[in-house]
Amino acid sequence: MADNFPHREAALGSRPADLLLANCRLVNVLSGRIEEGVSIAIAGNHVVGIGTEYEGAERIDLQGQYVYPGLMDAHIHLESSKLTIPECGRAMSRCGTTAVFADPHEIANVASLEGVSYQLDTASHNERLSVYFSIPSCVPAIPDPELETFASYMGPTKLRTFFNNPWFVSLGEMMNMPGAIYGDPKVLQKLTDIEARGLRADGHAPLLSGKPLNAYIYLGISSDHESTGVAEAQEKLDRGMYLMLREGSTESNLQDLLPLVNEHNSSRILLASDDLDPIDLAERGHLDHMLRICVANGVPAIRALQMATINVATYFRLSRHGAIFPGALADLVVAPDLTEFRPTAVMRSGRFVIRDGVELPAGRPLRSHLRSTMNADLPPVEALAVRAVAGRKLRCITAQPGQILTGEATVSPRLVDGWAQPDPAQDLAKICVFERHRNSGAFGVGFIQGLGLKRGAVGSSVCHDSHNIIVAGMDDESIRRAAERITAFHGGQVAVAGPAERVLPLPVAGLMSDGTFESVVLEEQALHDFCQEALGSSMKRLAAALSFMGLPVIPELKITDQGLVRVQAGRYPERVGVWVD
Amino acid sequence: MADNFPHREAALGSRPADLLLANCRLVNVLSGRIEEGVSIAIAGNHVVGIGTEYEGAERIDLQGQYVYPGLMDAHIHLESSKLTIPECGRAMSRCGTTAVFADPHEIANVASLEGVSYQLDTASHNERLSVYFSIPSCVPAIPDPELETFASYMGPTKLRTFFNNPWFVSLGEMMNMPGAIYGDPKVLQKLTDIEARGLRADGHAPLLSGKPLNAYIYLGISSDHESTGVAEAQEKLDRGMYLMLREGSTESNLQDLLPLVNEHNSSRILLASDDLDPIDLAERGHLDHMLRICVANGVPAIRALQMATINVATYFRLSRHGAIFPGALADLVVAPDLTEFRPTAVMRSGRFVIRDGVELPAGRPLRSHLRSTMNADLPPVEALAVRAVAGRKLRCITAQPGQILTGEATVSPRLVDGWAQPDPAQDLAKICVFERHRNSGAFGVGFIQGLGLKRGAVGSSVCHDSHNIIVAGMDDESIRRAAERITAFHGGQVAVAGPAERVLPLPVAGLMSDGTFESVVLEEQALHDFCQEALGSSMKRLAAALSFMGLPVIPELKITDQGLVRVQAGRYPERVGVWVD
Repeated sequence: MADNFPHREAALGSRPADLLLANCRLVNVLSGRIEEGVSIAIAGNHVVGIGTEYEGAERIDLQGQYVYPGLMDAHIHLESSKLTIPECGRAMSRCGTTAVFADPHEIANVASLEGVSYQLDTASHNERLSVYFSIPSCVPAIPDPELETFASYMGPTKLRTFFNNPWFVSLGEMMNMPGAIYGDPKVLQKLTDIEARGLRADGHAPLLSGKPLNAYIYLGISSDHESTGVAEAQEKLDRGMYLMLREGSTESNLQDLLPLVNEHNSSRILLASDDLDPIDLAERGHLDHMLRICVANGVPAIRALQMATINVATYFRLSRHGAIFPGALADLVVAPDLTEFRPTAVMRSGRFVIRDGVELPAGRPLRSHLRSTMNADLPPVEALAVRAVAGRKLRCITAQPGQILTGEATVSPRLVDGWAQPDPAQDLAKICVFERHRNSGAFGVGFIQGLGLKRGAVGSSVCHDSHNIIVAGMDDESIRRAAERITAFHGGQVAVAGPAERVLPLPVAGLMSDGTFESVVLEEQALHDFCQEALGSSMKRLAAALSFMGLPVIPELKITDQGLVRVQAGRYPERVGVWVD
Repeated sequence: MADNFPHREAALGSRPADLLLANCRLVNVLSGRIEEGVSIAIAGNHVVGIGTEYEGAERIDLQGQYVYPGLMDAHIHLESSKLTIPECGRAMSRCGTTAVFADPHEIANVASLEGVSYQLDTASHNERLSVYFSIPSCVPAIPDPELETFASYMGPTKLRTFFNNPWFVSLGEMMNMPGAIYGDPKVLQKLTDIEARGLRADGHAPLLSGKPLNAYIYLGISSDHESTGVAEAQEKLDRGMYLMLREGSTESNLQDLLPLVNEHNSSRILLASDDLDPIDLAERGHLDHMLRICVANGVPAIRALQMATINVATYFRLSRHGAIFPGALADLVVAPDLTEFRPTAVMRSGRFVIRDGVELPAGRPLRSHLRSTMNADLPPVEALAVRAVAGRKLRCITAQPGQILTGEATVSPRLVDGWAQPDPAQDLAKICVFERHRNSGAFGVGFIQGLGLKRGAVGSSVCHDSHNIIVAGMDDESIRRAAERITAFHGGQVAVAGPAERVLPLPVAGLMSDGTFESVVLEEQALHDFCQEALGSSMKRLAAALSFMGLPVIPELKITDQGLVRVQAGRYPERVGVWVD
């Protein structure tokens, strides 16, 4: 008969544990209090006992430092870090993160099941981070070839292939809001299947409100991470969603939403980052950064920690996670205070990944088998010209700093020989998306305000969610050249200005580097510096911001390889022309 | 393709709902606030929308009354109500209860799978109450024939037969603490199986503390309802258990434990009744009574309601329960205030079971096929005599009012002709347990203090958990006669005093009546009055208290058909003699 409990005797104290962390100030997120002077006994991968009377083969006196559970990110797309999972794990474990709930839909959009398998493989080759996955619900975001060309398609049958893998713990964010609300049979089937499995269905409902929100929640979708204002978030909480407060590189919503958190609702509120670029990981951190924001804004430290630990585990129905108790995975962080949350030690599954500031050695670099996903037939530069239409104004996307929501504006463009031109005086750039999976030659052209470009062009093969090539620039030659350089590097982010260029190569599916965390940070920083100095844009993370301009499930105006797409909450997206009727 | 969401259009408002509850004061246990003037749209069994703009085929103006979710009892043995489930549902729905989490281990101990099937059948024949079951983990409480004779045995193989029934949502209370802690392979197998199914394992750990508690929790057991003091409950909460605060007829712990509840821990605290007799159901109520205690003791009403609704649903991982939101089962209560919690209307699964004080008509009475479970070979009266041993003191159980914990005391008994006798002057009665399942003739004899008996005898075929016949009395003839009358009625509770007697017949497995709620209350009240008037005992619910004196998993001294058993937390129970060494 299988004994699932090999450390029962260590728990009972009739055998010594492997390790005793003595003299801890235990942050007990279960009971909401701090316990002084306790010992934590660890055997194998698990905490086995808490008290003062345990013994361990090894004993470490923590001298009254705080010990809190390893932090858990409730929703993230790891591909956005541009790092392979082992390198991302290195970056995140320094911040006290021991587990993430990752939706692999970026790589799934590029490389379908093979892409997801790659993430699973690399997750298992890292020792720092427990990576739980959600089953990508919307590959592509909206499966309508008239809205955009997409590379992969995952219907309900394909999704069922994930059901017997215990690392998949939810259905990933249901971005296809119209499909859900208006009853697309495939969407309803996915939701029916996941509920029958007893797993959560994660939501994605920016600005959704009223009856459409009710209908969306009626389908069993039980969380959201897209709220940008308190009223929006309050309505979602009232109507039954767990709220994930998000602080991503391009989606900074945490501080705005904290006024919502109170003693009666916080158990249904979690922290999530959604998308983090490597510079932010290096400079700000991860969930530790979010905890600092919480505490600085008056949230009690214990409540902030609950939102990043036990609340996440409870939402995902994981019994042995999110807190430090007998039988829990030994995922924990040692830190001298609860204001800065800077770890002196981090343990994952009973093994130190950082101890006294020293990290586990990095594993062997992983070679990717996912190269050469670029298959683009770029148009000639002349094809990018936009002919003016007499008496009509130009429709353009307006970018908003720190948000992935965009607006729509109309402008009178500068004309040269009857062709509409980018115009630094109006902060107006041209923006193009080039299909890059099927060699179709499809591309879309539009205009965008708010990027701050003065000259040159910047582009990215990270372009949510279908990850075609997106480029914004101030002249067609630069735009064409940026796109060409991206294909030459098998994917990446590129800025060009005259003959000069900077490249952040992303050869793994066009989304990720196979370099180290440190090298990618340097490359990305060089790219950003170049954008500021050579392209004249002061926008923070220009390439990252650009990568969301092609996502036709986020209001209000986006661009795909099929052209401009208007997105409004609760309505089906519609293509619109460059010129206003 | 199956559409699991037939009321999506009603949720979206493109079709009217079946029913609109207008002008509600919605008690939102999800966000912890009260929403004024909202409408609740209901279609089929579910809430489909909340707002002000819905329409329904029928519309009821609730004129600003409070609407809160149907109450959920986190742990109960329905058999203790002595009512069949349809009658119990009648009694409970009047209190605003719409769901219970029932451990059918009483009837399982008497009649194994057939008994559980009976409860399942009757649950499906009631329209008032959603009865979720736990899989009885400990039938019998401790499977050791030297501790007591038991009728049924359910090993891990038998328990697996429940796994595909979705009404079973947890492993029932693991009362076999020694088996768990010291690694009985069958117990470990049950816990391993349930964790693999993703279901909770409920605990039962009176007075367990320190390392044995750690070991018990290490096994994945994640709740407890047996705490009697704040320090005990705090330790269990700290170590990872969800706490069920209990207010049963014989186990009154709620008020003592309320000081523990605070803003940081309340999401892990639930309300439960465990065992309720029909008089208490009639006079005090059910969870509404517990809510009144909470509010009277300073717990905010919203938090009290969370403990009786959403916290319970979250613990058992039920997604569409415990709150009023789109997609939730329409289980709700209408009441004029949040201090008395007296419903004017109760709805279960979209159907009113009480409206304007009028109840749904009762269903057809159910005939039980579980009669004649009595199979006892009672000893002659002379066999009950206890011969004094020179120079030795008598060991006796001490009963504690309102608790199922007992103590152990030693007394110098009154002797008559060298035989130890009951003694009203010392409040000392004789207590016997007679095996009644296997016709074995086994019986145990001991003494007990604290029942307040002056004469006669009182007995019960409800005798946790093996449900042999237990009788306490002041003379052997009365004891023998009470036992004989219980067998004659195919089970029941009986009091005898000289030639007079009162009987509450319990022919369904010796545990339940097949009468109506009202008739059982009258019979039980008559029995209690008789105990007071004819037997002279002022103890509240004497027969109910007696029914726990045979449960050898509750400290500190109990009696079975094998004699006295000493029970200490964290240790294996041991048989002890009537005379102290």
